Amino acid sequence: MHAPSAALPMTPIGHIASDFPDKFGIPRQPGLAEAARARLVLAPPFDDPLAVRGLEAFSHLWLTFVFHLSPERWTPLVRPPRLGGNARVGVFASRSTHRPNRLGLSLVELVAIDTRAGVSLTLRGADLVDGTPVLDIKPYLPWAEARPEARAGFAPEAPAALPVRFTRDAEAALTARTDGDSLRALIAQVLAQDPRPAYRRGAEERVYGVRLRDLDVRFRAQADAEGNTLLEVVEIVAV
Amino acid sequence: MHAPSAALPMTPIGHIASDFPDKFGIPRQPGLAEAARARLVLAPPFDDPLAVRGLEAFSHLWLTFVFHLSPERWTPLVRPPRLGGNARVGVFASRSTHRPNRLGLSLVELVAIDTRAGVSLTLRGADLVDGTPVLDIKPYLPWAEARPEARAGFAPEAPAALPVRFTRDAEAALTARTDGDSLRALIAQVLAQDPRPAYRRGAEERVYGVRLRDLDVRFRAQADAEGNTLLEVVEIVAV
Repeated sequence: MHAPSAALPMTPIGHIASDFPDKFGIPRQPGLAEAARARLVLAPPFDDPLAVRGLEAFSHLWLTFVFHLSPERWTPLVRPPRLGGNARVGVFASRSTHRPNRLGLSLVELVAIDTRAGVSLTLRGADLVDGTPVLDIKPYLPWAEARPEARAGFAPEAPAALPVRFTRDAEAALTARTDGDSLRALIAQVLAQDPRPAYRRGAEERVYGVRLRDLDVRFRAQADAEGNTLLEVVEIVAV
Repeated sequence: MHAPSAALPMTPIGHIASDFPDKFGIPRQPGLAEAARARLVLAPPFDDPLAVRGLEAFSHLWLTFVFHLSPERWTPLVRPPRLGGNARVGVFASRSTHRPNRLGLSLVELVAIDTRAGVSLTLRGADLVDGTPVLDIKPYLPWAEARPEARAGFAPEAPAALPVRFTRDAEAALTARTDGDSLRALIAQVLAQDPRPAYRRGAEERVYGVRLRDLDVRFRAQADAEGNTLLEVVEIVAV
């Protein structure tokens, strides 16, 4: 009665080019860093302009992709950052990257379609590492897929955003760049999600590095006058 | 810079058992036939109860699956039923089953989780043919994924539902069944979506058959007193 459980081979239809050369620091859901630039470049034979005809009438897309930098092994239980990195939930109750088939699903905004040479889609809000292989594009159907009333277990709302500030050195580095404005927004949005490992969030003195575009953005946690945590960008260096 | 486009093998984590033994008649999006019963039965080694721990706190799930009954060939342009079956749009601007990688994506309601022997999930609103191989389960996150404001191109709203009526013979067949009530609801919801091929919708005299559960449900289009189309169930027979 059931189809046999034979392996099903999948072929990437294209790859992502994005502001995130590394996994570390990527927002944990799409839409949290609107300033992040991403393009999906389709590969032959999928780069036929006909294959995206009519897509421009949709504002949002689903991308199904592979977490190709994650290990192929999986475990039944994972530790979501949302639960502080200690409590464990089932892998299918999470959006963890360490999952069977390593499939990811992202809702992204479609900004532009370029069909002058093959097909390239400009996306907004993508949470995808550079080089991610994409398996499918589907248009988003709000009447079928927008369910604001859904219960969302241990992740009932968007994560709180941390305040982010820049040292004078960091500001100077931004000013020197032609992409300084969009880079500043990107850094602020990425750090506001607090990329530090959940179990490390007490270790205030440590300096972390997040790679964005061609840069290493070095930051640390600080306490403000009321003792609340903020993240401070201490240095921005080319890599 | 890009990962190579080598084939990525996927393993089904489980299979669907549903009220739809055939493709014909399946609603074209999830949630349109709430009376449809479906279970997702996980396969070893994915049927570990730990892998679904915490999932019960989510009301809705994403299923990523394979349209295993669709042909492996794809074309850049498809003819969506929503456009009358004549106009063509790009395959990536559609949710057509005839697509590269044959990947499907369904938002379903989670009704119950049974972990007494392996793992079986009871689902509501699934639009999946019996035997569908499932590749992944992810919890639905309304704060990230409910975008009621999204523009949806040629499918801006749910398709209109046709009125459905039952002949006396069909009513008698329902009355004789222990599952008569749920079956009546299922038939009404499935036929309201008008499963007839879009290009055939003028051919009023033809009798179609939709397979639901262990039955063949035979119906035809009729005109009511005002000349509007309704679908009439003329016969319900065991197969």
